[in-house]
Amino acid sequence: MKRARVTIAGLGLIGGSLARALSGQGYSVVGVDTQRVRRKARESGAVARTSASLERGIQEADVLVLAAPPQANVAMLRRIARADVPGLVITDVSSVKVPICREAERLGMREFVGGHPMAGRAEVGWRGSQAELFQGCTWAMVGGAARARHRVARVIRDVGARPFSVNAEDHDRAVAFLSHVPQLVAWALLEAAQSDEVAARNLALAGPGFRDMTRLAASPRGLWREILSANTPEVKRALAALRRALGARPRVAVASARKAG
Amino acid sequence: MKRARVTIAGLGLIGGSLARALSGQGYSVVGVDTQRVRRKARESGAVARTSASLERGIQEADVLVLAAPPQANVAMLRRIARADVPGLVITDVSSVKVPICREAERLGMREFVGGHPMAGRAEVGWRGSQAELFQGCTWAMVGGAARARHRVARVIRDVGARPFSVNAEDHDRAVAFLSHVPQLVAWALLEAAQSDEVAARNLALAGPGFRDMTRLAASPRGLWREILSANTPEVKRALAALRRALGARPRVAVASARKAG
Repeated sequence: MKRARVTIAGLGLIGGSLARALSGQGYSVVGVDTQRVRRKARESGAVARTSASLERGIQEADVLVLAAPPQANVAMLRRIARADVPGLVITDVSSVKVPICREAERLGMREFVGGHPMAGRAEVGWRGSQAELFQGCTWAMVGGAARARHRVARVIRDVGARPFSVNAEDHDRAVAFLSHVPQLVAWALLEAAQSDEVAARNLALAGPGFRDMTRLAASPRGLWREILSANTPEVKRALAALRRALGARPRVAVASARKAG
Repeated sequence: MKRARVTIAGLGLIGGSLARALSGQGYSVVGVDTQRVRRKARESGAVARTSASLERGIQEADVLVLAAPPQANVAMLRRIARADVPGLVITDVSSVKVPICREAERLGMREFVGGHPMAGRAEVGWRGSQAELFQGCTWAMVGGAARARHRVARVIRDVGARPFSVNAEDHDRAVAFLSHVPQLVAWALLEAAQSDEVAARNLALAGPGFRDMTRLAASPRGLWREILSANTPEVKRALAALRRALGARPRVAVASARKAG
């Protein structure tokens, strides 16, 4: 199979890293973003060409990757449906899969394959992007026709990631436990410590464990608010499970204290 | 000031790392532990001499470091009080400071300085020990007479750590937020994910964030049960604060969802 010509809409942490990784593998990548980011992407060599317009950016593309925040990706999906480009395979990188996969289904877009790379880092946006970001990571693939899935899987493998097939509902339920609630907990741990007058005075006592557990707190709040609100029922389910698991703990501690005392 | 002759009782992750670090700085270290660990410590060059007996191990020591689990450290403190060694400075590395500091006060041991290095790693026991463990870490110092504090601070600095003065009550309250509750949360996040049938089937979707946030779950449960039960009231306070911080979150998410919808 010939290498796909890939257009990436949104050159943030994920889209920018994907552009760098694919260009490094000899792909010819077209980038769509604001003027400032397009210039930086061109200067870095991460893209062969850029376009200010989504529709023009996909004129010669085999694969389009929607790499903006979730709601913007859904909006772009609708535009692409209206543009009706025969043979164009579309995928995305949104952290929640039910909304965009349902929309693709409603629009009858069988060439759409939901995607979600399980990668990230504290520094976000184009300046956080790096070609190695996806090395060894799992990349969720949801739905789509066989030919489209084949093309997307090839792209995923070519940037060093492992395609992982899952349906949209299971994905959103699992990432609530594995990503969304951990994100909430990172903020909550930091806030709890900062809100206690004694802990706040002694933050120097935070060791490597606390740093590990609050690293995610540096993630962009606006993007996360969007992600969490798109997955509210599953986040609630996972939070309830976390509360149950936490609730079992102090009882253990108290019981041991009584035995020891 | 001449380098102190240091005896370390307990050559686990912390005591073993301290022995390695001090020996690397030219200290003459005596190690007290089981026969098996003593042999390994001698073979590695981390100790100049070993002793099966605490009392014999401190015969020529200037500083004794109690580096066993918390309750064992308190028991050793009582033995040292009975042995009554003039001029011996005693410190410990227990994660909870009120119990051992109160006991030292009750015993009138002004040469005792409570200690707690904010360091750790997943691999525990002697085999987890490494000379670099304390590089750049904060090391809590609690109470004690000026001369004793001076000696202990020198040892702390010589292994690359930063002494941090705090009273026992503030220490225990702060570490409940910064260490003990994060430990509980790491277990709870893992348990919640494993207990959900869909999340458990899709653990491959766990990314670097989840790995960061559950790394502590590999910590030894027995030791942690002891630590948590020694600090139950403060752990409960910190857990309540975490619940409040978490409780504020889903409301934000739900509110955003309504606005978006």
